[in-house]
Amino acid sequence: MVNYPKGTAKTGKNPVKTARKRKKSILKVAPGNRGMGFENEINLSNQYYLDKGICLITKRPTPISVVKVDYARGAKITEAFFKTQSTTDYNGVYKGHYIDFEAKSTHSKTSFPLSNIPVQQIEHLTHVLEYGGIAFFLIHFYGLEETYLLSAKVVIDFYKERPRASLPLDLIKEKGKLVPVGYQPPYDYLPLVEELFLK
Amino acid sequence: MVNYPKGTAKTGKNPVKTARKRKKSILKVAPGNRGMGFENEINLSNQYYLDKGICLITKRPTPISVVKVDYARGAKITEAFFKTQSTTDYNGVYKGHYIDFEAKSTHSKTSFPLSNIPVQQIEHLTHVLEYGGIAFFLIHFYGLEETYLLSAKVVIDFYKERPRASLPLDLIKEKGKLVPVGYQPPYDYLPLVEELFLK
Repeated sequence: MVNYPKGTAKTGKNPVKTARKRKKSILKVAPGNRGMGFENEINLSNQYYLDKGICLITKRPTPISVVKVDYARGAKITEAFFKTQSTTDYNGVYKGHYIDFEAKSTHSKTSFPLSNIPVQQIEHLTHVLEYGGIAFFLIHFYGLEETYLLSAKVVIDFYKERPRASLPLDLIKEKGKLVPVGYQPPYDYLPLVEELFLK
Repeated sequence: MVNYPKGTAKTGKNPVKTARKRKKSILKVAPGNRGMGFENEINLSNQYYLDKGICLITKRPTPISVVKVDYARGAKITEAFFKTQSTTDYNGVYKGHYIDFEAKSTHSKTSFPLSNIPVQQIEHLTHVLEYGGIAFFLIHFYGLEETYLLSAKVVIDFYKERPRASLPLDLIKEKGKLVPVGYQPPYDYLPLVEELFLK
């Protein structure tokens, strides 16, 4: 499913690591490559839910702006760029309800920086709420090994009032729910959706 | 929004047209480029619904398998390929309900060939129905200048029983609804969703 950016076919090297060695100071990780570990585990959780007949949540492909295509070689794309996702990464259906969420991760141990959220995502989630959908964030703290489910409404309100540049962990703990971690599914967030939005 | 495949940045030429002139007989149009006219009008219709505060329907980006990325040049993708969409092109939320559909077009005037529907889309739409979502096809007949909304259930049943290799237009007319055409929105399909699925 998730297969970009990956090592080049020829060398098998991870281009991110190579670039990091080369020029650490100017490294900009491509949008499709941030927090891949956490993202993969969310994908596995969604696959588990699908296999168990619980819900259907799909990951939107990373949007790519294609500049050049070589049709003589089987429609090989020879020039393209990653674009910023104007929506969220995940959406789907659970008991007929529309579900929409974004999975984010941070290395901070005390807060989640709002700068990690593009304004388009705030607008998108505002629309989701407007049309009666269920919208939230899954926020993973690498340093704490903790993940929280937080209603999009809490994030949107904080984003607009912006008392601080980061969502404090205390607020996330107060308003959100700690996501149970396990083997299968890695992140069992769906019962929290039921609890927070459907009871 | 929809911007691939497009003309190359350098020449401004449309690579599809160029390829067509070059080798018409072996032309294979990339997945992202089929029925772009109809697709663009569906995108405009969805934008209209969003602007009017009616519903939120987004188009999933065309999935692309990235092989090589040049991080030294601002994460420029230098080798990639179009992948088959394993879901449908469109999904979203209307009055809290999950909506999922695929927009297809054909030059046939009498039927819609099932070969235009990848089996993954049949599986995806089967899941959508299983979890209580609203699922359908918008089928555009270029030769007739007519577009029909047809419940995914009708298509899935026909696909599985497969009495013929194409959905006859008569069946589409009998089970589906003709989508009204206009200036804004180009295809006013949402009232038909209300009528078919929510009444």
